[in-house]
Order: sequence, then C-alpha cells, then structure tokens
Amino acid sequence: MRIGLVGLGRMGYNLALNLKEHGHEVVAYNRSKEKVKKAEKEGIEGAYSLEELVDKLRTRRVIWVMVPAGAPVEQVIDDLTPLLDRGDIIIDGGNSHYRDTLRRYKELKERGIHLVDAGTSGGVEGARHGACMMIGAEDEVFSYLEPVFKDINVDKGYLHTGRVGSGHFVKMVHNGIEYGMLQAIGEGFEVLKESDFDINYQEVARVWSHGSVIRGWLMELTEEAFKKDPELDEIRGIVHSSGEGLWTVEEALKLKVPVPIIAGSLFMRYRSQQEDSFAGKVIAALRNEFGGHKVEKKE
Amino acid sequence: MRIGLVGLGRMGYNLALNLKEHGHEVVAYNRSKEKVKKAEKEGIEGAYSLEELVDKLRTRRVIWVMVPAGAPVEQVIDDLTPLLDRGDIIIDGGNSHYRDTLRRYKELKERGIHLVDAGTSGGVEGARHGACMMIGAEDEVFSYLEPVFKDINVDKGYLHTGRVGSGHFVKMVHNGIEYGMLQAIGEGFEVLKESDFDINYQEVARVWSHGSVIRGWLMELTEEAFKKDPELDEIRGIVHSSGEGLWTVEEALKLKVPVPIIAGSLFMRYRSQQEDSFAGKVIAALRNEFGGHKVEKKE
Amino acid sequence: MRIGLVGLGRMGYNLALNLKEHGHEVVAYNRSKEKVKKAEKEGIEGAYSLEELVDKLRTRRVIWVMVPAGAPVEQVIDDLTPLLDRGDIIIDGGNSHYRDTLRRYKELKERGIHLVDAGTSGGVEGARHGACMMIGAEDEVFSYLEPVFKDINVDKGYLHTGRVGSGHFVKMVHNGIEYGMLQAIGEGFEVLKESDFDINYQEVARVWSHGSVIRGWLMELTEEAFKKDPELDEIRGIVHSSGEGLWTVEEALKLKVPVPIIAGSLFMRYRSQQEDSFAGKVIAALRNEFGGHKVEKKE
Amino acid sequence: MRIGLVGLGRMGYNLALNLKEHGHEVVAYNRSKEKVKKAEKEGIEGAYSLEELVDKLRTRRVIWVMVPAGAPVEQVIDDLTPLLDRGDIIIDGGNSHYRDTLRRYKELKERGIHLVDAGTSGGVEGARHGACMMIGAEDEVFSYLEPVFKDINVDKGYLHTGRVGSGHFVKMVHNGIEYGMLQAIGEGFEVLKESDFDINYQEVARVWSHGSVIRGWLMELTEEAFKKDPELDEIRGIVHSSGEGLWTVEEALKLKVPVPIIAGSLFMRYRSQQEDSFAGKVIAALRNEFGGHKVEKKE
Repeated sequence: MRIGLVGLGRMGYNLALNLKEHGHEVVAYNRSKEKVKKAEKEGIEGAYSLEELVDKLRTRRVIWVMVPAGAPVEQVIDDLTPLLDRGDIIIDGGNSHYRDTLRRYKELKERGIHLVDAGTSGGVEGARHGACMMIGAEDEVFSYLEPVFKDINVDKGYLHTGRVGSGHFVKMVHNGIEYGMLQAIGEGFEVLKESDFDINYQEVARVWSHGSVIRGWLMELTEEAFKKDPELDEIRGIVHSSGEGLWTVEEALKLKVPVPIIAGSLFMRYRSQQEDSFAGKVIAALRNEFGGHKVEKKE
Repeated sequence: MRIGLVGLGRMGYNLALNLKEHGHEVVAYNRSKEKVKKAEKEGIEGAYSLEELVDKLRTRRVIWVMVPAGAPVEQVIDDLTPLLDRGDIIIDGGNSHYRDTLRRYKELKERGIHLVDAGTSGGVEGARHGACMMIGAEDEVFSYLEPVFKDINVDKGYLHTGRVGSGHFVKMVHNGIEYGMLQAIGEGFEVLKESDFDINYQEVARVWSHGSVIRGWLMELTEEAFKKDPELDEIRGIVHSSGEGLWTVEEALKLKVPVPIIAGSLFMRYRSQQEDSFAGKVIAALRNEFGGHKVEKKE
Repeated sequence: MRIGLVGLGRMGYNLALNLKEHGHEVVAYNRSKEKVKKAEKEGIEGAYSLEELVDKLRTRRVIWVMVPAGAPVEQVIDDLTPLLDRGDIIIDGGNSHYRDTLRRYKELKERGIHLVDAGTSGGVEGARHGACMMIGAEDEVFSYLEPVFKDINVDKGYLHTGRVGSGHFVKMVHNGIEYGMLQAIGEGFEVLKESDFDINYQEVARVWSHGSVIRGWLMELTEEAFKKDPELDEIRGIVHSSGEGLWTVEEALKLKVPVPIIAGSLFMRYRSQQEDSFAGKVIAALRNEFGGHKVEKKE
Repeated sequence: MRIGLVGLGRMGYNLALNLKEHGHEVVAYNRSKEKVKKAEKEGIEGAYSLEELVDKLRTRRVIWVMVPAGAPVEQVIDDLTPLLDRGDIIIDGGNSHYRDTLRRYKELKERGIHLVDAGTSGGVEGARHGACMMIGAEDEVFSYLEPVFKDINVDKGYLHTGRVGSGHFVKMVHNGIEYGMLQAIGEGFEVLKESDFDINYQEVARVWSHGSVIRGWLMELTEEAFKKDPELDEIRGIVHSSGEGLWTVEEALKLKVPVPIIAGSLFMRYRSQQEDSFAGKVIAALRNEFGGHKVEKKE
C-alpha cells in the first residue's frame, strides 16, 4: 500500500523502515528537513510539506501521523484536514488521549475523513521489527488497512479493539498496567539491594527471565539495564511520565474502579521528582510539636 | 501515693512534676545524676541507684518506668526484678511492643511481681498537665492504681483497656492512626501549596481548628508549626518513626486487616529518608530501555 | 443583615435558624413548600418563588444559596441572575467544584453581580450552632459580609481564604484530609477488632478523645457512633462519597502532588461499594492458571 | 544422579517426571501411598517410608524435599536428619521462609548435613517441562548438583544466588513482584470492563502478549483464563495468598524499603476475603454522625 507518514522521530522513522521492508511505499514528511533527507537515503520517498505529501499519495489516501500526543497531533490534523478528500484515512499512531480521539473523529467524520487510532506498544525496537497495535476503527476502514497492520506487527500482535477511540483507550490501560509492573519490579530489586544477601541483580533478572512466573519483556530489559550499569550507580531514580498512567487513574476515578496500585505507582513517580516534600515537612514539624522529636534543619 | 519513677527524660520529668502537683510523693531515679539533681530542686526526692530507689519506697512498691522502649526498658526491669518483693508493681509507661509486655508479664508473674502497661499519649505537654493513658492491668492492680491515673490524666483521659498488654496494644494502634492522620494533613497542605491560590497555611490551620470536621489537636499544632515558620522553609521533610506505626502494620499483616493508609503513611516516611530511590533507578533505566526515555545522570 | 436563603435542606434550615438567632432577618425559599411553611413557624419569613424572595430583599441583596453542588446550584444561579441588580451578592455555601465557581464568578461579574464561595464545614450541628467557613471573595464584598460570618461561625471559625474560588478549593482539600483521617480511624478500629484483646471500642474512642494526640471531633463522633451501636452490627461498611475527595485527588494528579493516602482512602470507598471485584477475579483466575490454586466458584 | 524425592504433590510429582526424563534415577516417597504407587507406574522407584527412601540412596545422598512450607518441611527435615550421614544433601524446593532456612542450615551443619534452598518458579508446568530455580548453596554443593539443575530447568533458568537462604529470599521477592504485577493486571482489566467500550478481554490479553511492553507469561495466562471463561462470570474475586508476598512486605518494613505497591496488592487480597469491612462500617457511621449521610442497614 502507498502510505503517507507524518513524523520521523524515533518511532516514526523506524515505522517507515518497517513498512518499507514489507513492500509498502512510504512517503514521509517531517517538520525538520534533515530527517526527511536521512529517510530518503534509506529509499523512502520524501515530502517537504504536507501539501507535497498529500499530492504524492494516490486516491483514498492513508496518512499515518506519528507525532507526540497533544498539540503536535492537533496541529498536524488541523493542517491536513483541508488538504484531504472524502474517504481518506488518517491514522493516529501516537498516545493521544482517547477523548481527544473521539472529538477528532466526530469533526473529521463531518468532512467524510476517517480517523483510526492505532495505539502502539513495543517501543522503538517494536516499531522497527514488529510492534503491537491496538486499533480503533470503523469496520470497513479496519478491513482496508488490515494487511498493513498484519505486516508491521509481530504475529498476533494487532487487534481491532472496536470503534474509534478504543485503540487509544486500550493502549492507555496497557500503559497503566505497565506503571504498576515497573514499580513492582523496582520495589523488588530495592528489597534485594537492602537485604543482607549479596545479590547480583543482572543474574537475578536473567534467571527471572527464563521460566519464572514473572518472566516477560520487562524482565529481559531489566537484565539489559543491569548489564550496562550493574548497580545503576550512574543514574538518578527520577521517573517522569508521559500521560497514559495519569489518564488511566483519572478514568478509573471517574468509573469508580479502585486502582491503588496504578495510582500508587504514579505517586511514587511524582515523589521521585521532588527534592524534598512539603507533606514531609508538615509531618516533621508536627512530630516536633507534639513529641519534641527533632526536625532536620536545612543546611 | 508514694511512687518510684525510673527515667527523667522529657516524658518522665514532666510526669514527675505532674504526680507531685497532685500530692503524690515521687522518688525519682535517672541514669545520669544531673537530672536527678534538677528534679530534687523541684522538690522531688532523688535516688542515685535502683537499690536506693527501691529502699525508699514503702511496702507494695509502685515503680513507674519511663525509659525508651526496647533495650532500656528490658535493662531496667531486669535490674529491678531481684530487688522487688511479691505484690510490688512495675508500670511500663513507654511505648513497649505489647508482645514484649506479654512476655515480661509472664516472667514477672512467676516472681509475684505485677506488670502494668500504661500507654501514654498527649506528648510532653500531656505528661505535665494531663495525659491520656491506655492501661493494661489485672483488675485488682488497676483499682489500686486508679486514683493516681485519675489525677495525672485529663478528665476521662484514662482507660483500663483490659488485661496486661492491651494498654500497649491500644497505644500502638493509636499511633498507627496518628501516622495516617499526619500524612493526610501533610498531603492536604501540599495540595494547597502547589495550587494556583495564594494560601496562608497558618490561617487555614487556624480556621480548620475551629468548627471544622477535621478539628483536633493535630490541627491546632499545625497552626502552631506554621506560626513559627510560615512556609516551613527552614526544615527538611525527612520523617523518622519510632516503632508503633511499623508494629501496627506488622500486626495488621498478621491479622489480615487491610491497612493501606497506615502502611502507606509509613512507606512515605521511609521514602522521605532516602536521598534517591533504587526502585526509581530501576524504573528510569527500564523506561530508557523500552522507550528511549532519557535518564537523569548523576552529576 | 437582611439575607435571602435558597434551600432549606438539613444544612440550609439550620443555617436559617442560626442566622435568625443572631439577629439577622432571613427570607427563605425552598423548592418544596412544606419546608418553607415549617421555617415560617420558626419565625423565618417565607418566599414561595425566587421572584418573591428577590422582591422581599433590600437593595444590595445578599442571597445565600444552600443547595446541593452541581446541577441544583447551576439552576438556582441561572434562575436568580436575571432577577438581580448590579452589586447584589450570591453566596454559594455548598460544596461546588471550585472550577465551576471560577466560571460562574466570571459570568456573574459581567453582569455586575458578586459571587462568594463559602465552603462550610462542621456538619449539621455546625450549621445550627456555629460552623467553620472558608470564604473566597473580593475584599470589599468580604468586608461587607464579615459581620454575618462572624455571627454564625464559632469563634475564629471563618477565614477569608483569598479570591473567589479559594473558599471552595480550601474546603475541597479539607474534605480530602477528612477522607484520609476517616480511613486511618477505620483501619485502626479494625485492627483492634481483629486482635486477641477484648476491646470496648466506645471506651477506646472516649479515652482517645481526652488528652491523646489524635483527639478531635472525629474521635468524639466515633465515641457517639459506638455508643449507639457498640459493634456496628446493624450497618454495612459501604462508604459513599460526594465529590470533594475525588476532586482533591484529581487536582493533586494535575499538580503532581503525591497523595497516596487521600487517593487510597477514596479507592477503599470505591471497593466498599463493590460486591465482588473484577480485578480480584482476574487475579484468582491467574493464580489458578500458573499455580493450580483453587478459585472460589459462585454458588 | 540418583535422587530421593519427598512429596508427590502437584509440584513434586511433576518434578519427579522431569528428573526421570533427563536420565536421573528418582526414588520417591509420599505420606499417602496412592501417589507413590501412581509414580511407580511411571517408572519411578517408590519408597514407603523415609527409612526405605534413605536406604535406597547411594552414598552422598541427595534428597529433594518438595512439601508445603512451614510445619510439613519442618517435620520432614526433623525425621530425615537422624537417618542421614555427614555429607548428605537436603534440597528444600518449597517456599520456606528464608529465616527458617537459615536456622535449619545452621542446625544441619552441626551434623555435617548440607542444606540447599531451591526456590522454584514456573508453576506446575514448569516443574514438569522446565522450571526456574533460585538456589542458595555452599559453592561445593552447588557444583555437585549443578548438572541436575541444568537438566530440569529451562535454558538459563537456574541461578546460584549465593549462600544458603538466598535462594528462598530471591524467590520470596520474586513472588512479591508477582503480587504487584497481578494486581496491576487486575486493575487494568477492571478499567476496561467498566469503560464505555465493548472490549473483548481475551483478545486484548492476546494482543498484549504479542509485541507489547507488558508481554510475558502472566499476560499469556490471562488470555488462557479468559478463553475458558470470557467474563469470569463463574468465579469469585476472592484472592488468597500463601506467604511470600506477606514476607516480602515484612522484610521491606524491617529494611525500611518503601513497597507501597507490593503491600497494597496484599491488602487488596485481604480486602477481597472480607464480606464486609469493619473499617468501612466505622467510616459509614462517622459520615452519618457529622453529615447525616445515610448508612446502609443490614437486611
């Protein structure tokens, strides 16, 4: 299939190579020209404006948008919309909030343009060699695109999750679960570290990756991480987050689903970003008030 | 009543004054002589050894032990035991683990000595001007001591919680609840601080102390704390703990009682004591592995 | 002061009596006539429509709206607005979301009408005999109303928290803290219940109310509750929530403030509303898959 | 190698077949004769008493104990000890608490008997076709046994974690992480369930098992579980636990490691075992006290 691709970041660039490798014709546009030129060297057709991109696509255009969620996606879709014809398809492959997707779907539908949300997991490596996609789409549109999804994902690694929005929703929950799993792994290794035993973390991650109940990609990556830095001495334990965990908790709150673990994992990330905690200060001050317990003064 | 007192720390010293003020004769011993001398200036009879203390007490001695839980209590009771006669009473007024209390009760009982556990709340101010005591004791022993408890606690501020051990147990749970309340207060003020509004914390603590649902001593102390340091700029949010919160969680774990809030409050204290978190490092490293997310390097 | 009051529910009715007792002239309107008639018997001037209410007020009208947050407040303000003159004042005494308050303030300001948010704590008893109010208002408006706030709240029990919206914001956080405190208390009593000791809960709540670190109104109410039903045998542990705890967590999530305790307390409420847990089902099924652990079948 | 096996439960029986398949001679004893007879039909040599078992083994006996942790392990080791000679090896393949293992190691060492702790993961399937083992052992003993561990575990699926006790410790932490992962998965599916989308859980588990960040054995088992019961309608969400999660939390508490997620997962299991919550009752009663909020009465 001939496919337009907007965005040649880590994910988009690798997706382009993946598509090309499976025989698809990719026309790629990126805001900065350098990446387009780089892609052209890999045999990918470049476009230096959205107009050029749209012009270079055949009838029933398919344009895969692979830019950061939020304002960038909004901008690209706003700019693309007037250039497209009825029946054309925009695939949002990023981590957009599903409520934004629902809104955009409605707006695009009025102009006869189809929106597809393809929540993508598997990281950079997955984008290149076989990803995992959760796809919200109208049935007809999904059928039209399915051969592409089949090619670029690992075997059994794509799913038509339902109507538009469901792909981003399921991907959001996927990431929420990921937050909990990561925190559980982190806590476990901290217990190992603080114990009286002299544990080789990399070796433990390796054995847990082979035959254990908790084996999986995250544990394999844990082995990789400890291989590079056996005590993680060089990095700081500051954990940022990009939105999906927060959204999962916000949705759960609205749906009255108890998610203490996903929320707790997010709060530990927030805590990791603080040098000091105002809550802690209040408590330290109060312990001093009622029990005369010493507070630690700032230097 | 004539009462022996072991330990003239913050709590013991104020308790001695409190007892004296209510007409009781206090004979006080402390490991370091200075505090005994200081107490003598307040009209309290001093003793410079446990032997002297025991000698100076009348028949059916009552000895109030007010030293830190753990090894110090253990030592004092071990040293006292051979000096005492059948029928004598030891009151452990500290925060001993109730399981230690149960064990000591059994050991002392074999020698005919009574143990009473008087879990004491209300802080230093309470010890001086009226405390709150949760008292585990045999019925007869409690009746014998009740006039004293009545004098030194605030009105309605003492309770015979049941058999020996129950006083320390109820005090332990009291402190567990305290951990949760403190963390809730801390979190609330941190939300106020981070909000767009320009909030005067002291004033908020003041108004919450008068007529609100969450009014109480802790909120009054919050007002005091902010009065002294309006933004808590001078202190660090490092929160230590002395055992009872931990024990409450450990007991709850054994009893299969879900205590996510008390445990969570304890974990936030532990976290406050860490400069960096190994769990956080593991997660940061993993996010880098699967998504290429940047890690923050140590300087 | 002559004051219009909309809403004669539990809170509004008692507020009316409170205002009257302090010499204010109250004109009260309620959707159902019965309550108006009842109020009239107490010497309160009744109004049977918003129009009548507005007509009966003097220049620079002050109308206190005491109806449930959300649609009811929205409706009352929508209906009142066209009836009012520039300079008139609407006090929203309910638990409106502060973001709604900010919006309404802006809308009313365009018509020259002042909005005041008076977050009210202290329960029904407080409304009647002295409440606690957190008040967001323009300075001039606050000064104009201050004598009223002084009368109907307990001594030191009102605060001008800042600009409009801040009153509801501070009240929201107050309730968030309340969630955490309640859950901490609940957990503590459950530990007492499951322990080997034979604890009298009412007595414990009583002693904790007198001189302890955790003394406060909530503990006094705990004593009351156990007095009525010593084992709480007659009620179910299903805990509902009315919004402010949820909003506190939502705000904290946006502000990146770790609030594991407030959030955890909310999640335990949600869990209490479930007969069974789908999360639990998934875990039970998985334990069966990997370890052959038995699942409990539905009957 | 000729190996004695004590315990032919789910795990032990499959381990026997696994050992035999790899050319080891297994002599198996089980308290109830039926299972021994069953094993004999599979070509495994049976023993009908521990004495017989010990007699049938060659010099430097190796006896693998595969019985439930706690009293059963204690009993078997107590009964075995007097029958063994210096140099003999007992492997504890169950989930014993590592502190028990440390104690037993010391006791057995005095008699010249070696203890090895082989924490085993991978479930029943793993025991049969390739498990994952974390092994605490003296170096010489580990080297002696390594060929066996190599045979019966998956490739790279065994690790000499260090000195005796470390195997059970690492296995304990493995299970702690498992608790957190399971709860995260459970919460995620509950969010899916309560959402507005019409989600096929089995299909989602399937796609998440192929190429996603959270892929792993647990997700594959989730697919299996939903395949058998697509809505989990037939089972109840009551989740039991067998000790290791609890121990992980207890160790973390001692080591001052914040483990809110592992602990929180355990608390949700405890909560799932309750029909009603006393904590919830207290809170419901209190909300009634201060706000007049209705309580739900028992029928």
